[in-house]
Amino acid sequence: MSKRLFGAIPGIAEGQTFENRIELSLSLVHRPRQAGISGSQAEGADSIVLSGGYEDDLDFGDVIVYTGHGGRDIPSGKQVVDQELTRSNLALAVSCQQGLPVRVIRGQNHRSEYSPQKGYRYDGLFRVEDYWKEKGKSGFEVWRFRMRQLKFLSNQIYEIQSRQVNEDEFEYGAPKRVETRITRIIRDTRLSKQVKEMYDFKCQVCKTRIETNAGPYAEAAHIKPLGAPHNGPDDLSNLLCLCPNHHVRFDYGGFSVSDTFDLIGEPGKLHVHSAHQINKTFLGYHREHRYEEDW
Amino acid sequence: MSKRLFGAIPGIAEGQTFENRIELSLSLVHRPRQAGISGSQAEGADSIVLSGGYEDDLDFGDVIVYTGHGGRDIPSGKQVVDQELTRSNLALAVSCQQGLPVRVIRGQNHRSEYSPQKGYRYDGLFRVEDYWKEKGKSGFEVWRFRMRQLKFLSNQIYEIQSRQVNEDEFEYGAPKRVETRITRIIRDTRLSKQVKEMYDFKCQVCKTRIETNAGPYAEAAHIKPLGAPHNGPDDLSNLLCLCPNHHVRFDYGGFSVSDTFDLIGEPGKLHVHSAHQINKTFLGYHREHRYEEDW
Repeated sequence: MSKRLFGAIPGIAEGQTFENRIELSLSLVHRPRQAGISGSQAEGADSIVLSGGYEDDLDFGDVIVYTGHGGRDIPSGKQVVDQELTRSNLALAVSCQQGLPVRVIRGQNHRSEYSPQKGYRYDGLFRVEDYWKEKGKSGFEVWRFRMRQLKFLSNQIYEIQSRQVNEDEFEYGAPKRVETRITRIIRDTRLSKQVKEMYDFKCQVCKTRIETNAGPYAEAAHIKPLGAPHNGPDDLSNLLCLCPNHHVRFDYGGFSVSDTFDLIGEPGKLHVHSAHQINKTFLGYHREHRYEEDW
Repeated sequence: MSKRLFGAIPGIAEGQTFENRIELSLSLVHRPRQAGISGSQAEGADSIVLSGGYEDDLDFGDVIVYTGHGGRDIPSGKQVVDQELTRSNLALAVSCQQGLPVRVIRGQNHRSEYSPQKGYRYDGLFRVEDYWKEKGKSGFEVWRFRMRQLKFLSNQIYEIQSRQVNEDEFEYGAPKRVETRITRIIRDTRLSKQVKEMYDFKCQVCKTRIETNAGPYAEAAHIKPLGAPHNGPDDLSNLLCLCPNHHVRFDYGGFSVSDTFDLIGEPGKLHVHSAHQINKTFLGYHREHRYEEDW
């Protein structure tokens, strides 16, 4: 099994159609040949196919309410037990929390005005903006995912690589970086995932680990901010793993960090993993530009 | 002094020009007749004028790096002391934290290719997406605000009232609601401000109050979510004041609340102000749709 690719597939334009699931799979737009959701609990979901399988799906074009997987009787297609937030459903929840882009493919059997006449059509990148459970039309619980199309604003170009995991499966050289235009909603890169995992999702200030139904939650905070005029790099040496509370305080001048990792503005010391080489120039930049000792 | 109006002014289109500051002031687009920033520390900033006063301003069209107020010698216009994060600078920082839309007006003296030939031009709504301090060209510290134009996506319509404060100054009837199309970045309504102030920005779960250089920070969380298919109301009875950590956990099924305000999924009880009438139907909706006891 190859790496999981998030985001646009190079060479595949929005609107491109495929005759069948095999062609679709070979294009890398949606690898599984049967499953509607491509993804794993550890990595998140990278693509879905709307193929008319679920009576509860809704399609408003740029907004889709997609029904999770499981609990259906195979021959009849009827929902016969509750769905669970596990496996591919959990993968979609992880994509929600991490802001990962999900490729959406509509199939001819999907009952909506947005479906293609025949075959399968790649309809672009969507963000999972919400998920919840409810009693479906069948009376059994289903998990639902509201997805919203990512429209690229011509003046907001963010180059984010398609996230690539299982990189050790590459046999030759470094993984290719696929640059794609994405709105700033998408924030989770391979690097932010890396810094979170390095700290097991525990905040480097308070060691809090936020537990949710889609697993632990933490945020990767840039020490020297990205974007003009700061132009801090998206690099592990410029990232901290913080809980949302400390992320807010860090970005809004509530505290800073000395070169010896003492906290400034609150007691204690930053927890730093021995393998985490934080660039002290960036800490200095933060103290100088963000931190305000007077308030 | 009348109420402060946030967002678009009804009847004023983007691109409209004004001969002078008096005409601009009478239009309500930018009320102060001299100051570059309209706003207060308590309410946030609602508009700014780019008029060439600061040598450190940058203008990229849809992104502006705006220099704060203060520290300049009046006759020469030169920066002679450090700026502070107080008064109108603090107002812009509050707009950043609360996601308030800021009207931007460019004047003829503003040196950029985006300036009007003559007079003042209303150039739409911007969001303050970042602020920091730095040594300006003068060698003194200035506060800078990166602002990004809010481009309205035709398919993402969020009706948010222009936020109106000082409502007791209305002499007749209820304040008018001005509906405007705004992206979902703008989340802070009069109601969310109200629920935060009711709890003095302390989390209803853990009583944490996040302190930042622009004042205390909290988030207003909808119990029954807004938007289809939930369609929870934007109403005080459907809002909680939470710290970011508990907001994440609340939205991602980490905990819920019983009808008697016992926490489910973590120990303790929700703190509820005697004047805060939380609708228990919404708590039930949250338990049923968001909370997952099994993970």
